Order: sequence, then structure tokens, then C-alpha cells
Amino acid sequence: MIDYTGSYTDQYQLSMALVYFRQGKAEERAIFDYFFRKLPFDRGYAVFAGLDDLIDILENLKFDDKDISLLKDYAFPDDFLKYLKDFRFRGNIYSCAEGDIVFPARPVLQVEANMLEAQVIETLLLNILNFQTLIASKASRMRMVAGKGKLVDFGLRRAQGPGGYYASRAAVVGGFDATSNVRAGRDYNIPVSGTMAHSFIQSYDDELTAFRDFAKEHPGNCVLLVDTYDTINTGIPNAIKVGLEMQERGEKLKGIRLDSGDLAYLAKEARKSLDDAGLDYVKIAASNQLDEHVIKSLIEQKAPIDLFGVGTSLVTGKPDAALDGVYKLSFAHGKPRIKLSESISKITLPHKKQVYRLINKKGQWIGADAVALEDEKDFKNIHSPFEPEKSMNIECFQKIPLLEKVMDNGKRSKKKLSLEDISAYRQKRMDQLPWEYKRFTNPHIYKIGISDGLKDERDKLINQYKTEQI
Amino acid sequence: MIDYTGSYTDQYQLSMALVYFRQGKAEERAIFDYFFRKLPFDRGYAVFAGLDDLIDILENLKFDDKDISLLKDYAFPDDFLKYLKDFRFRGNIYSCAEGDIVFPARPVLQVEANMLEAQVIETLLLNILNFQTLIASKASRMRMVAGKGKLVDFGLRRAQGPGGYYASRAAVVGGFDATSNVRAGRDYNIPVSGTMAHSFIQSYDDELTAFRDFAKEHPGNCVLLVDTYDTINTGIPNAIKVGLEMQERGEKLKGIRLDSGDLAYLAKEARKSLDDAGLDYVKIAASNQLDEHVIKSLIEQKAPIDLFGVGTSLVTGKPDAALDGVYKLSFAHGKPRIKLSESISKITLPHKKQVYRLINKKGQWIGADAVALEDEKDFKNIHSPFEPEKSMNIECFQKIPLLEKVMDNGKRSKKKLSLEDISAYRQKRMDQLPWEYKRFTNPHIYKIGISDGLKDERDKLINQYKTEQI
Repeated sequence: MIDYTGSYTDQYQLSMALVYFRQGKAEERAIFDYFFRKLPFDRGYAVFAGLDDLIDILENLKFDDKDISLLKDYAFPDDFLKYLKDFRFRGNIYSCAEGDIVFPARPVLQVEANMLEAQVIETLLLNILNFQTLIASKASRMRMVAGKGKLVDFGLRRAQGPGGYYASRAAVVGGFDATSNVRAGRDYNIPVSGTMAHSFIQSYDDELTAFRDFAKEHPGNCVLLVDTYDTINTGIPNAIKVGLEMQERGEKLKGIRLDSGDLAYLAKEARKSLDDAGLDYVKIAASNQLDEHVIKSLIEQKAPIDLFGVGTSLVTGKPDAALDGVYKLSFAHGKPRIKLSESISKITLPHKKQVYRLINKKGQWIGADAVALEDEKDFKNIHSPFEPEKSMNIECFQKIPLLEKVMDNGKRSKKKLSLEDISAYRQKRMDQLPWEYKRFTNPHIYKIGISDGLKDERDKLINQYKTEQI
Repeated sequence: MIDYTGSYTDQYQLSMALVYFRQGKAEERAIFDYFFRKLPFDRGYAVFAGLDDLIDILENLKFDDKDISLLKDYAFPDDFLKYLKDFRFRGNIYSCAEGDIVFPARPVLQVEANMLEAQVIETLLLNILNFQTLIASKASRMRMVAGKGKLVDFGLRRAQGPGGYYASRAAVVGGFDATSNVRAGRDYNIPVSGTMAHSFIQSYDDELTAFRDFAKEHPGNCVLLVDTYDTINTGIPNAIKVGLEMQERGEKLKGIRLDSGDLAYLAKEARKSLDDAGLDYVKIAASNQLDEHVIKSLIEQKAPIDLFGVGTSLVTGKPDAALDGVYKLSFAHGKPRIKLSESISKITLPHKKQVYRLINKKGQWIGADAVALEDEKDFKNIHSPFEPEKSMNIECFQKIPLLEKVMDNGKRSKKKLSLEDISAYRQKRMDQLPWEYKRFTNPHIYKIGISDGLKDERDKLINQYKTEQI
């Protein structure tokens, strides 16, 4: 739906690209790491999302005529513009699987490309991965507490513009079942779901006629909104009346929707009334400012709600609203690279790397990932990247590599998966994640360790930069 | 940049549209009000934005072949799909000017169209106006505290996907000067600004050579990032060295950028060092997790910062992340319409209306807008919509109508303005807004009053619905 071109970037990427081009550095091999520093929503894990979109977009990324003409107006020189006209992303990408459970301070994805290409795609890559990972993480938190309830994204109207399109996709990665967003449903093959709005009922002189007309046109998919005037005294009784009329015609009222008031109380009252009328098959949907906390509370109160429609808090990832993912250079101009900082947590990891998930003899995750140099297979210890005195011997654990090549010379190199498959993978990984990291509040902190070799290389570079006058 | 089609909507809009179509209600005149209930960011006002984009999109909105084919798969009947194939928005829109200062609980915009068209565009309209109004409001808050500092949007990498594109536009409406977002700059003619990233400096063996190469390729627009290794000991001295070299060549170093550490302290140190070296013309830019609170604090500390680069908090409208704007039916099927609620603040206002800004004899805003029936010119009192006993005589005030026809039969009916003009209008209106509503914390509450006639009509409808069994 979005017409991505080379200009979907920050201006400084192009300013830097010009220098690389002129200084003969454009085609030098570079490696960038994508990672984030802080888990969103004070939780114990994040769900990685957006990878498949990123690959699709990078495979087709070009500077179009309007871009080139704009950059000419900005006084970029002709030889550089000619180079950009032929720009394609021809690099390699190594990544965790989309839907995997990921943690801060270690690469989620690595880009290995020529310096100019790797630099130019930074903004686009961050824009896509940060947002979808935020939303998939939020969605998975709702999935975790919603029990058997279906989860449907209702958020497009309050979404951050067309961000809502990707939010609908990321919600499915995180465990949602459907969306109200028709365009996202169309393009991503997501089940689409919808009921009726208050305006529909208001446009009639009375609620009952509105319900009857709707049932007539949607006999197989009739969900009636019962709170326009008075949920208990008119909405539910009118819905039951129509439900019974449908039953007489051999049809089935699919559900009712509650959109205001005390949802737990109203759902219980509605369930009882429906059951008493012999309409025990009619489902109850609830919406209105839901988030993971409200859903958890409704489930704990045993509110008989079959479907939760979640809007704003899902699609905007409130209150965090952003994931702090960054893209940092780890190799360039033939050498490993590092960025220093007064805060040790912001010092980057040099070199091309692999990330391993550590598994004990029973096949269980031990709650730690290890980051090592790419070719360092047999490291024996991992070290806290932040606290020099902390380390752990890991010889007794199995090490499962997490970064796989997903783009090779600018082309997708792994089979494209359906959103369903990606969501199923997330569920499998969530089941493997020990419960203490899934805890709703104050989850245990998953450990990240760097290997002996990586620690040596990092410390060597830190010392080198700190002793040399740069 | 976005390929909007009819499927950019919630599924239920189409389910309802089918019923309107089948029941002969599709072509009946309907009126919907767009308004919001709560000001974002606990502030005293909001800045209305997104209108011009909305008009452009509505003028061209169609269901494309893929949409129709999808809806066929969803089992929508052929006669309805034929109708949708010819769908165009042919309604009228009455709106406040984009960039105006707006308040809760009164129409910001009214749609008058046939029932089906008005219903189908709801999601799109809310998606565009809610987000841009949120961001323009956030931006104006930064504009208010930034003094003479330039404000530049750096947010695309942390934006909610392509929401960042509209955020860059809305930021300008709210008072920003430029963006790093090249695509938004291109399409909206926004000044584009950019410096360099840490990766650029890291890709060199030393900072000084990186700075020199950059200066060589960008002699007219060289801003050097000074915190990659050590701001005080290497970054600033190296920038000064390059600045003096440029000066010898008859060029001028444009600026330096601080992106970490204590920005007030570092800006003061940098200013002193630059001035001592005779580089008093070199500007200082600052970035790193800025928001209106940090900017205000930096200004209060007299940090000599010339340009603020603002990212995440601007483009995501953190922490609110959404404006709660709604779209409510006020006229349909030949009659005024109302939605009841247990909470009086959620009861809607029936009929086509006009909104007036009240001006005293000195030409000053009195801090109240009045909502009246469209044809009710000479009302004498306004009443609180929420507190029945509160009213005010307004005969001594001038009433300036705010809603103007901006679309007529689906076509733009007012001249398209440039973003610059819209931003200038916002500034003019901000200057007119009494200071107590602009206060940074605990602003005064702007009043909304409904006219005698509107109150009578609303109360009549409330009583009618409450006494009839619906």
C-alpha cells in the first residue's frame, strides 16, 4: 500500500552517502547491527516483527525520478545522482526469525552490505522493525491474558495514520485473530471482522427496526451493538427478540457487542438473558478502551466475553508508543568498529556476530542468549556486557544459532511464510519461554552474555580508542 | 505516498453500507460531526491539522478492482458491488480552518453527505484528522517553549511506520521549521535538514579525517556530530580545527551537533570554545530524547542551543499516542439524531450546527466557543452542555463563525493553502489565544456553550428517547 522509494530516509543518510561515494568508500563492506536497548511495556520479552515486510520492500527499493529531481534541487552532484539512479540493495541480511522472542542488547538482525547501501536503508529498516516489534509485543501481552477469547484489532481510526496498516499485521504476529481493517485484511490475508456502529442504530427511528434490517442483510454474520440507548432495558431485549426471529427462520444470531458501561456486569447479565431465551450459542463481544490490564481483569472476573475488540492501546503501543531500536556500525573499512559512550550500556559490539540461545540438557531455555564472534564456535564462557565481573560457564549447554541469512545479495533467501505460520512460530517460542519471563508484572530479567572472544575484541577496541587521541 | 482506496476502512462501515443500500437509505441526507472529548497532553488547547490531506484523499477516493474482488470474496452481493464501483464522495464538508486552535466537545468539522458515503469515509477521516491534530498539538507545545530555537523533526526511525510521513507534515502545522524526512520534504515542500550519524565517524579510523572529508563534500552545509568518542576532549576540538580550516578556504562551518550527555553543560562549553576560536557564527544543534519538557529546561538554563532535533516524542505524540476524536451522527432519515449515554459528556449534539468564537468589544477572545443550530443567528445565551444550571448571556460579544464549507459536492471549495500559510495561521491564532489557556501546566479550561435553540432541541430528544421504549 505504501510507495516506498529511496527518499523514505533521513536526509543525513544521503549526505553521508555522498561522502562515501566521493571518498571511494561506497563499495566497502560494512556490517550494521539492529538491536534495542529497553524492553517495551516493562515486560520480560519482545516479539520480533516486520521482517517479511522489510525484505519485500528492500527487494524493490529504488530512487524514483521525483527523488532524483528533488536531490538535484538540493544540489547533490550529477555523478552521485547517476549512482543513486542505479541504487539497489544488494546486501546480505542475517536475522532472527520473525515471531521469535527477542531481548535487548544483542543483535536481532545484521546487515552486511556495501557501506553506502547499508547506510541508506537505516531509516527505513528502523521505521519498519521498531514499530511492528512494538505492536507484536503489545499484542502478545493481550494474547497471554485473554484465555480462549478471540482478539480483534479495531484500531484504525485512532492509529497513527497509515501506521495502522502495519499495526494490523503486527497484531496478528503477536497473537491477534482478526482485524476490522479491510485494507490490511486484503493485502495480508488477515481474517476481517466487523459489527455495526451506533450511527447505524441512530439512523433509524427505533433500535428494533435497525436490528431487524441488519439481521435481514447479514443472516450469517449478524452481531448487534446493544448500548446505543440502554443496554439492559432495550439493547439486550431487542437483540434477543431479533435472535429468536432469526432462529424461527432457521438462522443464527452470531453475537452482541457491548461498547460501554461495566463490561463484566453487562456481559454476565447478557449471557444470562441470552441463555434463558435459548440463545446460548450467541457470542458476546466487548470493546471500549480495552488494553491488557482491562482484559486481564475481565478474565479474572469470569466475564463471559468471547471476543475482545481492542483499538487505541494496541495499534499505538500505548504508553511507550515506540521501541528504541538502533542500527549500529560494527565493521567498516576493513576493521571492526565500536561506538564509545560514558554509559557502558551504550557501547556497541564490534565485528560480525552470531547469537545463540542456550538450552539445557532437558531441552529447556535457560533464560540467556549468547553473542559471539561469527567464527567463534567453541567459546566456554559468557560475560555480562555491562558488569565486567559477571560471567558464566556455558559448556554444559547446547547453543542454537538464531541469526539466519534471510537476504542474499539483495534477494530473499528463505521461504516466505504466511502470517499464520509466523504467528504459530511465536506461539511455539512463547511456550518454550520459561514462565518467569512471561510474568505480567516484574518479570525475571533474561540474560545476555558476550563470548570470551567478543569480550576480548571489544575491550581491546575500547582501550585503543581511549588511549589514542582521536 | 499512500494508495488510499475504499478498503481503507473498518469492515463494519461496509456491512452497514450494505443495509443502507438495500433498505433505500443509502442516498438519504446525513450529517456527522467530528469532534474530540479530551485535550491531549493535559494542555489547554489543540491545533487542528490534517484537513488539506483529507480533502485531497476524499476527492480521489474509489474502490479499486482489488477491493471489489475482495468484497466479492466476502460474499457482498453483486448489485452492491456495482454501486461501490461507482462510489465517489460527493458530499459537503464544513470545517474549521486547518491550523486553528480547537477545543473539545464541539464540532471541529461536519460532513453532510448521503448516508452511505458519510458512513464509509468515517474511518479514513478519523485516521487522518486524529493523528495530525495530535502531532500538531504536540509540536505547538514545543514551539511555545523553544524561544528562537529552530525545531527540526528527526523522528522517522522511531515513528509508527508511515505515520512518520504525516507526522512530519503535522509538525510543520504546529510550528516546526524543518524535517529530516526526505520523502515528506519532497511531497509537502518542507525544508529538509540533516547532519551526520555516528556510523559515519566510526567508519573512519579517526574522527578528524571523518570531519575533514565531510566538510570537503558539504562546504555549504557542514554540521559535525561531536560525541562519537569524547565530546569535550576530541569532538569539539576536532570540529574547531575543521572549522578553522574551512575559514581559511573562505568557507563557513555551519554547526556542530550534540547528541548525548548533559546538553546544557556541553552547549555552554562548546559555545565558549567556538567563540574563543573565532567561530562565533557556528551554530549548536542538540538532539537525544528531547521533548517539550527538556527543551523548556534547556531554554531556562540559557543553554546556547540554536536548533533542537526532536524525534520519538514528537512523531508518536507520546505519551498520549492518540487523540480520542469521534464521528457522530447528528441528522439522518429526515430527523435530528442523538446518542444517549449514562455519562452526560457522551451525549451527542443533534442537527446541523455552526460554531462561533466569541470576541469582546476590545477584539479579544473571551475563552469560549458557542455551538448553535445552523440557522440560529441571534441566540442570546449559551449553556454548559454538561452542567444544566450553568449559562451565560453573550449578547455583548461578537460571534465569528468557524465552520466554513471546504468541500462542495465532493470537490474542494476553498483555495488550497501552503503548509507555510497554515503554520502562519496557527501562529496568528496562538497569538490571539489568551495566555492562561497556553500555560504549560494547569491551563485554564476553555468554555464550550450550546445555544438556547440547540439546548432545547437536545433536551427534547433526550426526553423523547428516555420516555419511549426504543
